[in-house]
Order: sequence, then C-alpha cells, then structure tokens
Amino acid sequence: MPNLALTISYNGTRYHGWQRQKNAVTVEETLSRAIARVAGGEPPPITGCSRTDAGVHALYYVCNFFSETSIPAEKLPLALNTALPADIRARRCAVVGGGFHARFSAVSKTYFYQTYTEKIANPFLRDFAYHFPHEIDFERVKDAAAHFVGRHDFSAFMAAGGAQKTTEREVTALEVTRGGGLLRFEITADAYLYHMVRIIAGTLLYVGAGRIDGAAVPGIIKAGDRRNSGITAGPMGLYLAKVRYGGRNGEQNRQEQKTQE
Amino acid sequence: MPNLALTISYNGTRYHGWQRQKNAVTVEETLSRAIARVAGGEPPPITGCSRTDAGVHALYYVCNFFSETSIPAEKLPLALNTALPADIRARRCAVVGGGFHARFSAVSKTYFYQTYTEKIANPFLRDFAYHFPHEIDFERVKDAAAHFVGRHDFSAFMAAGGAQKTTEREVTALEVTRGGGLLRFEITADAYLYHMVRIIAGTLLYVGAGRIDGAAVPGIIKAGDRRNSGITAGPMGLYLAKVRYGGRNGEQNRQEQKTQE
Repeated sequence: MPNLALTISYNGTRYHGWQRQKNAVTVEETLSRAIARVAGGEPPPITGCSRTDAGVHALYYVCNFFSETSIPAEKLPLALNTALPADIRARRCAVVGGGFHARFSAVSKTYFYQTYTEKIANPFLRDFAYHFPHEIDFERVKDAAAHFVGRHDFSAFMAAGGAQKTTEREVTALEVTRGGGLLRFEITADAYLYHMVRIIAGTLLYVGAGRIDGAAVPGIIKAGDRRNSGITAGPMGLYLAKVRYGGRNGEQNRQEQKTQE
Repeated sequence: MPNLALTISYNGTRYHGWQRQKNAVTVEETLSRAIARVAGGEPPPITGCSRTDAGVHALYYVCNFFSETSIPAEKLPLALNTALPADIRARRCAVVGGGFHARFSAVSKTYFYQTYTEKIANPFLRDFAYHFPHEIDFERVKDAAAHFVGRHDFSAFMAAGGAQKTTEREVTALEVTRGGGLLRFEITADAYLYHMVRIIAGTLLYVGAGRIDGAAVPGIIKAGDRRNSGITAGPMGLYLAKVRYGGRNGEQNRQEQKTQE
C-alpha cells in the first residue's frame, strides 16, 4: 500500500495536542477522519513527526499514513481541505518509500517560541504568544542562549513523563530576536526531551527578568536538576516550524519545509 | 460628574460589534458591566468613537463615560482588566472636559485592512485577515488606491443602513503594503460611511485580481452607484487603528493614539 507523506499546518488552540486520546479532540483524530472521508475506508493510523501538547501550534508538520486512495497524492491536500476544519490545513502530499517514518526519519526539527513581554496583555495574541509581563534584558538573554548550543545532557530541561533512552540532545542553533513587544526563540535540535523547548524558553525568560543569572546556565545544564531551571513557558507560544529529513530512506530532504514568514 | 476618556483594544471575534444590542454580546455592554463592577453603580452608557460591526477589531479604540468612581483615572485600566475578558484590554484613561465626545470630537480615524492572498488559507489568520486567494497585481492596486485620496462623494462605497446627512468624506491617506502573504491597506479619513472601508478594500482586491480596471476607479467614484464597486470584504480583516482629536473641546490630541506595530 502506498506510503503518503503529508505536510499540514494547524492552529492548536482547540486541540488536545496531536496524539489520539480518549474523550478529547486531537489533530491526529481529526485528520484521520478527514482522510477516511475523502479517500474512503477506515480512518487510518497516522504517524506524526512530533507529539505536540494541547494548545501547541504547527506551521509545518509532517506526518505519514498508508492509503490506497485513487486520488493522486498532489491533489490530496485540496481534497482534504474540503473535509478539514479551518484550523487545520493540508499543504502538500507525496508518495514516499515504505520505510519513511515521519518521526524516526527526521534528522532535525526547528521550533519557535514567542513571548509577549508588554505589561498589558495583547488581546490578539492570547492563544498565540505566552504573556510574561516583565522587563527583559535582551543582551543577557542572547548571551545565555549561546550556552544551550551543542551536545548536552538536557535532564534539567525535561518534564517527567518522557520515555527516552538517553537525555543527550544536540542543539545546533538557538537564535533570539525581538520586535513588536515580542521576544522570539528559534531552536533547532536533532530531537527534544518532553517540554524541553518550553523549559529552555522559561529559563531564558527568567534570565532576562533577572531571576536566574545568565552565567549560571552552564552549571544548570551540567547539574541536570530540573529544580534549577526556569518555568515551563505556556503551550500557546510554541510552534513547530520546520522538519528536516535525511537520506536514510532515500527521502533526501524531499519533505524539507521552510519556516513560514 | 467627571467625564472619563478610556482607550481600549479588542479582538472582535466573539462580539456582535461595539454597540449594545438585544440578545447579543457586544463590546460596549461587556465594558459597561466591567465598569460597574469596579467603579460601583449601574453599568453606565458609553459613547464609542466608532460603531464597529461583528468580527471587526480595534487596536486602539477611544470611548467616554461619566462616572463618580473613587479610583483615580490612571489606575482604572489596571482595575478594569481584572474584570474584563481577555479579548478586551483597557490601556489608558484620563479625565477630560465635559464636552468631550468620543465620536463627535474625533477629527480623523485610521483603519487598517488586511487580506491573506495565498491559495491555501492560513489557519492562524482565520479571524484576523480576509482570505482572498487570487493572484494580485500589486502595482495596479497601488495605482488605483491613489484615486480614493481627496474629498469625494463616496456613495458607491456605502452599504444601505447609514443615516448620514452627506455622503462626502475626505480621505487623507490610503497606503498599500504587502508581505508574508498579506496585502494591507491603511486608510485615514475625517469620517466614514457604513462599510466604506470594507467596500474600498473589496474594490481594490477586484482591481488587483483584474476583475475591475484600475483606470475605471475615478468613474466608479463619480457615478456613485454601489453596483459598480467591488465586494464588501469580510469584517475579520478590519482594524480600527488610530483616532485623532482636535482642539474643539480643548483636548488637543490628548487622546491621540499610535498604531500598534
């Protein structure tokens, strides 16, 4: 049966995350039902590139599923968009090798995280940025961000509940920008621990607000104790922005996606 | 009784516009109840600077009401924000002269209108931009926009239902910009006819898509027939961005607000 790689975007506000759950509406379940509606058959199991939490968004999210639909892959997004709610949009679809797995074939992922730091909340960003109304020392945040880049044991930046074999991850980039009352982090890593981006974001916000000394960050990483790092910043500020695939299954970045501007 | 001028922002998605209505939640009613909650007394009548429609937003909206609250005006926004829903935020408040009227004292208002023109809808902009998925000739739109500037009879850009004495209005600026899949219009005028901004936006979109010849715009204005102009573009793309007050009541621009970036 053909293996289809599908790229979607979703506004996660209304969803209890990606993964199918009992008694809660998830992106996976909603998408699976839309696929069944347009392609026929039972709603298929879908492999997602990331298990995003409730309220987390995706600009570009890659998933794959097996289907014998007669609709050509390149026409599937248009068909799916007639069956999907407006907060999920299919963008592109392609037939890939049977070995392609949206999560295991990924070689790196980029997330961005945005925080609104003005005193009065922005009524337009309630579901789209974390509100942290404190004076931020931008230079301190930038300096502290550099400490995260590299291969580290990120135990201090992990919530309980993960099931990983190792807590080492490689962060290849962590950029900080600001503008319009927003502070933004863009992070790229080979893989992530549970809540890793949100705890790194919360730690950098604490550094910016003077609650954590930026020079202490290397020590916090080294000690590996969650009690030393900052808060878990809210889900509404988190966006999956890019997923890169390597040559393992001959996919050669065919599903590589660019961050939406 | 002191006359209080209050500046708010609101995300209009959930509201049936500004003005109080039977059996529908409006911004005015919601604000009036919050004022009563923090200032005591009955919910006061509020004069708004504009009667925005359902789904229309305001970055900076000025209104005024009379109150004998003991809370100092400058502390009222913070107090109101504890009583208001998160999609309405109070920003500043000041005691003004008894003759100040949020609508009649205004000398000009600026609206901005944004349209998302990419083929596939953006799931994050559903409530915040009008989706018009057509190829747009940006230069044509810019050229056509210039024809609206000046004092004209805008009858061709008015929906039925207005109760104005004259249909002449003076547009002092109409700028067009684009970026990130969005086409934006920023328009300043002394006053507006009912749906005027949305019909001008719809007409410019039709020019951009080649459905109306840009060179025909002066003739469309002159003929004053609504049937010649374009569609009424959707309310979700419209934002009240700025209100300027003159010296009529000695207010001397005290309530002038800048567009939020």
